[in-house]
Amino acid sequence: MGNRRFVSRETNLRAQASRRGLAPGTLLDEGGQSPATLRLLRYRPEACEQEAAPSFSRAAQLCAAKAGTVWLHSSGIPNRAQLEELGQQFGIHPLTLEDIQGSFHQAKLETFEHYVYLQCQNLSVQNERVEVVPFHILLKEDLVISILSGADDITTPLLDRLQNPQSRLRQRDAGYLVYALLDLVVDQAFPALQRFTHQVEVLEEDLLTRVHNGQIVAIQQAKRDLIVFNHVLWPMQETVSRLNHSIGEHPLLRSNLRPFLNDLYDHTIQLMSLLTSERDVVSGLMDIYLSMVNNRLSDIMRVLTIISTIFIPLTFVTGIYGMNIDGIPLLHYRYGYEIVVTFMTIVALSMLWYFRRRGWIFQRRGRA
Amino acid sequence: MGNRRFVSRETNLRAQASRRGLAPGTLLDEGGQSPATLRLLRYRPEACEQEAAPSFSRAAQLCAAKAGTVWLHSSGIPNRAQLEELGQQFGIHPLTLEDIQGSFHQAKLETFEHYVYLQCQNLSVQNERVEVVPFHILLKEDLVISILSGADDITTPLLDRLQNPQSRLRQRDAGYLVYALLDLVVDQAFPALQRFTHQVEVLEEDLLTRVHNGQIVAIQQAKRDLIVFNHVLWPMQETVSRLNHSIGEHPLLRSNLRPFLNDLYDHTIQLMSLLTSERDVVSGLMDIYLSMVNNRLSDIMRVLTIISTIFIPLTFVTGIYGMNIDGIPLLHYRYGYEIVVTFMTIVALSMLWYFRRRGWIFQRRGRA
Amino acid sequence: MGNRRFVSRETNLRAQASRRGLAPGTLLDEGGQSPATLRLLRYRPEACEQEAAPSFSRAAQLCAAKAGTVWLHSSGIPNRAQLEELGQQFGIHPLTLEDIQGSFHQAKLETFEHYVYLQCQNLSVQNERVEVVPFHILLKEDLVISILSGADDITTPLLDRLQNPQSRLRQRDAGYLVYALLDLVVDQAFPALQRFTHQVEVLEEDLLTRVHNGQIVAIQQAKRDLIVFNHVLWPMQETVSRLNHSIGEHPLLRSNLRPFLNDLYDHTIQLMSLLTSERDVVSGLMDIYLSMVNNRLSDIMRVLTIISTIFIPLTFVTGIYGMNIDGIPLLHYRYGYEIVVTFMTIVALSMLWYFRRRGWIFQRRGRA
Amino acid sequence: MGNRRFVSRETNLRAQASRRGLAPGTLLDEGGQSPATLRLLRYRPEACEQEAAPSFSRAAQLCAAKAGTVWLHSSGIPNRAQLEELGQQFGIHPLTLEDIQGSFHQAKLETFEHYVYLQCQNLSVQNERVEVVPFHILLKEDLVISILSGADDITTPLLDRLQNPQSRLRQRDAGYLVYALLDLVVDQAFPALQRFTHQVEVLEEDLLTRVHNGQIVAIQQAKRDLIVFNHVLWPMQETVSRLNHSIGEHPLLRSNLRPFLNDLYDHTIQLMSLLTSERDVVSGLMDIYLSMVNNRLSDIMRVLTIISTIFIPLTFVTGIYGMNIDGIPLLHYRYGYEIVVTFMTIVALSMLWYFRRRGWIFQRRGRA
Amino acid sequence: MGNRRFVSRETNLRAQASRRGLAPGTLLDEGGQSPATLRLLRYRPEACEQEAAPSFSRAAQLCAAKAGTVWLHSSGIPNRAQLEELGQQFGIHPLTLEDIQGSFHQAKLETFEHYVYLQCQNLSVQNERVEVVPFHILLKEDLVISILSGADDITTPLLDRLQNPQSRLRQRDAGYLVYALLDLVVDQAFPALQRFTHQVEVLEEDLLTRVHNGQIVAIQQAKRDLIVFNHVLWPMQETVSRLNHSIGEHPLLRSNLRPFLNDLYDHTIQLMSLLTSERDVVSGLMDIYLSMVNNRLSDIMRVLTIISTIFIPLTFVTGIYGMNIDGIPLLHYRYGYEIVVTFMTIVALSMLWYFRRRGWIFQRRGRA
Repeated sequence: MGNRRFVSRETNLRAQASRRGLAPGTLLDEGGQSPATLRLLRYRPEACEQEAAPSFSRAAQLCAAKAGTVWLHSSGIPNRAQLEELGQQFGIHPLTLEDIQGSFHQAKLETFEHYVYLQCQNLSVQNERVEVVPFHILLKEDLVISILSGADDITTPLLDRLQNPQSRLRQRDAGYLVYALLDLVVDQAFPALQRFTHQVEVLEEDLLTRVHNGQIVAIQQAKRDLIVFNHVLWPMQETVSRLNHSIGEHPLLRSNLRPFLNDLYDHTIQLMSLLTSERDVVSGLMDIYLSMVNNRLSDIMRVLTIISTIFIPLTFVTGIYGMNIDGIPLLHYRYGYEIVVTFMTIVALSMLWYFRRRGWIFQRRGRA
Repeated sequence: MGNRRFVSRETNLRAQASRRGLAPGTLLDEGGQSPATLRLLRYRPEACEQEAAPSFSRAAQLCAAKAGTVWLHSSGIPNRAQLEELGQQFGIHPLTLEDIQGSFHQAKLETFEHYVYLQCQNLSVQNERVEVVPFHILLKEDLVISILSGADDITTPLLDRLQNPQSRLRQRDAGYLVYALLDLVVDQAFPALQRFTHQVEVLEEDLLTRVHNGQIVAIQQAKRDLIVFNHVLWPMQETVSRLNHSIGEHPLLRSNLRPFLNDLYDHTIQLMSLLTSERDVVSGLMDIYLSMVNNRLSDIMRVLTIISTIFIPLTFVTGIYGMNIDGIPLLHYRYGYEIVVTFMTIVALSMLWYFRRRGWIFQRRGRA
Repeated sequence: MGNRRFVSRETNLRAQASRRGLAPGTLLDEGGQSPATLRLLRYRPEACEQEAAPSFSRAAQLCAAKAGTVWLHSSGIPNRAQLEELGQQFGIHPLTLEDIQGSFHQAKLETFEHYVYLQCQNLSVQNERVEVVPFHILLKEDLVISILSGADDITTPLLDRLQNPQSRLRQRDAGYLVYALLDLVVDQAFPALQRFTHQVEVLEEDLLTRVHNGQIVAIQQAKRDLIVFNHVLWPMQETVSRLNHSIGEHPLLRSNLRPFLNDLYDHTIQLMSLLTSERDVVSGLMDIYLSMVNNRLSDIMRVLTIISTIFIPLTFVTGIYGMNIDGIPLLHYRYGYEIVVTFMTIVALSMLWYFRRRGWIFQRRGRA
Repeated sequence: MGNRRFVSRETNLRAQASRRGLAPGTLLDEGGQSPATLRLLRYRPEACEQEAAPSFSRAAQLCAAKAGTVWLHSSGIPNRAQLEELGQQFGIHPLTLEDIQGSFHQAKLETFEHYVYLQCQNLSVQNERVEVVPFHILLKEDLVISILSGADDITTPLLDRLQNPQSRLRQRDAGYLVYALLDLVVDQAFPALQRFTHQVEVLEEDLLTRVHNGQIVAIQQAKRDLIVFNHVLWPMQETVSRLNHSIGEHPLLRSNLRPFLNDLYDHTIQLMSLLTSERDVVSGLMDIYLSMVNNRLSDIMRVLTIISTIFIPLTFVTGIYGMNIDGIPLLHYRYGYEIVVTFMTIVALSMLWYFRRRGWIFQRRGRA
Repeated sequence: MGNRRFVSRETNLRAQASRRGLAPGTLLDEGGQSPATLRLLRYRPEACEQEAAPSFSRAAQLCAAKAGTVWLHSSGIPNRAQLEELGQQFGIHPLTLEDIQGSFHQAKLETFEHYVYLQCQNLSVQNERVEVVPFHILLKEDLVISILSGADDITTPLLDRLQNPQSRLRQRDAGYLVYALLDLVVDQAFPALQRFTHQVEVLEEDLLTRVHNGQIVAIQQAKRDLIVFNHVLWPMQETVSRLNHSIGEHPLLRSNLRPFLNDLYDHTIQLMSLLTSERDVVSGLMDIYLSMVNNRLSDIMRVLTIISTIFIPLTFVTGIYGMNIDGIPLLHYRYGYEIVVTFMTIVALSMLWYFRRRGWIFQRRGRA
């Protein structure tokens, strides 16, 4: 089972277990991890400039200047030094920093007095495998910090849209950028789900064609995949819903975001609805598998029955005439052999006729 | 499995995946799709006139004239140019336009300041197949815009009722027209469900008569159909319920609609209740199938047992007398053969009696 | 499956489908159906008079006279003319009239400004079959109209109680009469459920005694019956609950009804609780059936094994001595035959001993 | 199945059915049932006196004297005369009296203006069987009436505690006595559940040791027992919860009861939690049973296969040499017999080796 | 089944049953149990002192002095004398004392006027077994009393942190200490769950490799373990949630605890989410087991079929030529034997070809 398509469950547990006994909010020292690559942009409707030497301190300076929206994106989880800088420059709570560094992820929304923290999980298809990586978003006044673990940078489409002076993204504030990032993450889930759906359909076709041992493994794997999808998507839906309800309650979430978040929520509902359909299909696969195995066994038994029940009585007849006992009739009669062979043929044919009538042989195999 | 009766799940996913990276609210260019056919009516209690050259702009002019209720119906999804005209003339939000053009549909209700947007899915029986097409309704002051994808126009009965000056439809306002359209969609679902119920009953009869491989495919197909019905009808019920609760809260939904929407809600409850019953029946089909397969195997085994267990001991007896060894009793006795045959007959009959007593053969097959 | 004990599901669907395209609230013309039989009573604590020529207009006159409670009972659904008269005389909403005439029924409560409409379904045992017929109740100030489809009149006990001047029914107002009618309907469900419970127990005993094909049909039928019971009783409970909550909110439902409706609600809870227990029992029947089939197959296989495995090696031994080859030992030895037979007996007995030790034969069959 | 450990479901239904058509609140005449045995106590912190000739009227007199808390306990359901006396003396609603006399019981709480009525069910172990009997409690100002159907009097521990002047029971008011009675009933459920748990564990051990037909009956019986436990305990939890919420709302339920009722509620939660665990265990039993049956069948088949597949080819070889045809090789060769026997031995051994390699024979049976 | 990894369910029931008839709040006399070992600390930001002779009275004195936070930890449940001292010194309700001494445990929160009582269950891995022991926390003004049953002291990491003057634990008040204790308990659950997850994965691998009887026991054991985990973790989540909601409502729970309790709640959600995934995996194991058993049976049957169906007809042919009857063709023909052998070879080969074509033999076993 080396070809797990998702990160093993055990990894999370082990990482979580290694925190035992530590004070909450303590950052782990990862042993000289190199700093994450940052990208810093400042944009307003008139202009959009990318900073040459991005850092968390530089972002804080730009924010203080109050000249447009600042977007700091980190490819990869920042190392300990960067996280401490992030905490100091923007007053981020130690527990939030621990969440960013942490090993267990599940979409969630946390609102603090001066910032909003969003965590979600990005599903991406990499070399035919689905990868789940955490995606963190921090929203402050005129500032968005996004942190995406893993090599694949899904945010490039936003860079292109920011270059375009007419784009809605450039006209709007930081809250809209958060929405645009979430929209990207949600849209990423569709091709991943599409790939899974395709695999399930292939498996179903295969099950209906012929049956073999590896299919149990595949069905069990599909069930595990469903668990992972559910684990990723259900909290995402919850989080978008809670974000929706926080509009107007938190000063950073303004009410002009509402129609967009409603639309986003619809998309998460679509994902969950597709996932629910897929669950019903997958749970039917085991039934198909078992009934196909049953059918094959039944087919085999049928052949055994026919051959055995035809020849066992005939062999008995030959046994009779093989006895060395005296007085067996027809033994030396002129047409004795012909009579015996005819009798045996009649027996064989009438049994075939009986099996046929019971529908055990020569039946057409219908397909609905 | 080429005879899927519903649109494949994959289609939706693929279409949705193709939107990835696009700014939300962007309309796709479908490559020169021809404009949808429109029909424009204006009616008031005294008169009902059909417009010769219908367009979204003409509808806007009629509305501005404030002389009765205006109903614009589009057969087929409008193309990009038409959708943009619709957006400009009536101030429709880009996300609503994207929903109309979109590939994934699920009944929903969205209320905006100046209009109400309703989406639902129409189930229609076309050439023995059930088709699911999206149906969009926009309600503004004195204006209803309805958009039905697909060739079949379900709205003709409303045209007839509008011709009749006494009809309640003509006496009432735009909200009642929305109700009448929804009522049509809900009523369409009954024959589709009836067809499905009939198929399930036929399948059940077939299962109880004889068992074959194609039935697994048919049962799995019925389960998929249930998923589609559920996917279409459950959000419809939710939407009608939310429409009901929006009465009095949105200025376009007036309280005289309440008894009618209550009635509509009852109909959706009936649909869901029928669907739930059907689910219980379908989930029982797999049990029947498996137990019929089991029964057939058991029947086959029974015959094998009887034939084998009767003839194997007899063949052993013939083997004894076929041995070339000296000293076998009765070998040359006068009535030796007769005694051996009598012995074998007694053995065979006592075994038949035993099987009979265990109820394995010659049993009546009762039907409750 | 001609012996369905309940009305087929298809009937409802077909009837509902025939309304497609009709304006809501339109009454169907049933083709000269004769009017339903009416019974009209007026009672007050001092007196109770039955009207000779009952009609809806006469009931309206009696109501206008304000001299006691008026009860109009219709045996059978009124025909179109009667329904229209009912609508005009008492200002009943067209959708309510459509509900009374309608083909799909489910217990519900609808409150209008001047009247309350209750629909429920009556379960009655008729000639060993359970019949489900709709029962409609309209409550206006000092007036109750009850409409029971079907021949069986369950309301006669109330007539007797009304004759008795001391009866609480006669002392109280129209609301109490509605309660008394509902109480009748709920009490009718107990014997129907009792009959079903009895059938399930008989089926269970039968399953544990011997197994045959007809039992799958019976189990499936029991599942369908459960669906119907659930379909009838669950909305009834809901309706009684909503009636309970409407007390004090609607002027026609006075607060002195509360303890009685609480009691009625308890009875519906009892029904649902019994139904839930029955569902668990029925869902266990399929398990019993499958395991009994399995057991029988296992029994048959055991016998086959024993006979075959004992005689096949013995037959092999006779085959050895049946060979025409030279040099077979013991062939012409004095006690050759006795030695061979002894050897075969030892082989047979040791196999029997092995099977016995494995618990495959001669085991006691315990019953817990 | 004569050894049902609980009262049959049918009994309740039949008794309920016998009330059909009766006016609600009517007491049935049970045909000269003798009056129930009463016990009447009056206590206050200083004293506790038992009344010599207890009756409902005497209890009313004591109450009127306002000298302490009065507790009237009835062993067995009062007969009709007593119930009528109870109704008159304390103003108990006819529906409450019907509930006390009634045949269907489920824990519930009913609050009236001048009294509180509690019904619950007492589970007691009697001669190795679990008995379910109804227990009724009426609370009025300074008065508690408790009615326990059945011979076993569970209230004796309370008598002892009342004799003790320091006991909290004697210091407190009537509400605390109600709590003490409920606490007794809840505590009674633990040994009943313990007995059931023990039976299930014994059954599980039995299933894993050997498999026989009676186990299906036992599993089905355990499922039924679970239904009864659930039917008794779940409404009990609900009732205690509602009692908890009624504190402060009804004048008879004072707020100093709160911590005690909280504790009681915890106990009912414990019961439900244990019951839920047991349900999971019981639902796994059928799986074990089926897989054990399957295993046994598989074992039997394995032996059949080995014996048959070894001897059938060997018998074929003897058949070859038993033919009377000319020209069979080795027939008259010097070591012909030895060669043939050696050949057959090699065939047999290589088949045994193959079966062994497939893991079909001689495998160790591991236990995890 | 002697190797139960968790405390048996029966133990709880029996202990609970032994309380029957006792007045609530009565402490049991455990027969001379020795007192539990106590540890008493007083700390404030400047200092942290451990008391030499800890007792409940000494803790009360230190509290009265109002010089910092007092933490009293008891390793093992205090005996009766200690519990009574605890009750008197700090005014703890008798029911709370009974809960501490009690035998049934489930996480819960109880708020009293002057203190808060928290109960939860600690999962710890001891010698390869998971142990569940109750953990009690009492919070008063400036005082925390923690009581942990069992030998393993999980609180030592807190001692280390208290020695560190910079630690957040030392800076904060008693409420933060309660949070730190709960955080320890929740973190303990991760390695226990990790161990369980590992066992399930090993079991799954084992199932897919080969199938044996002990696996049913192991699967059933895994189901029971899931029940215990659920029983421990679900109320823990509930309790943390309720603690969260009590912030601000109870004066001892101050609002600066909120972000920490939110974080703790996230951890419990993670635990439940992992547990839910594990439940889906475990419920799939039985399916795998059954289908593997089915597969093995099918394999065995296939071999039986092939051997039997090939040799039974051939043996029949030898039987023919073994008959002593006259006139059998080829019997004395020159190449008779060669012709017969060739015929039998052709029959055998064509049957092998047929089986091959049906896919019953020589098929590749694919692995997805």
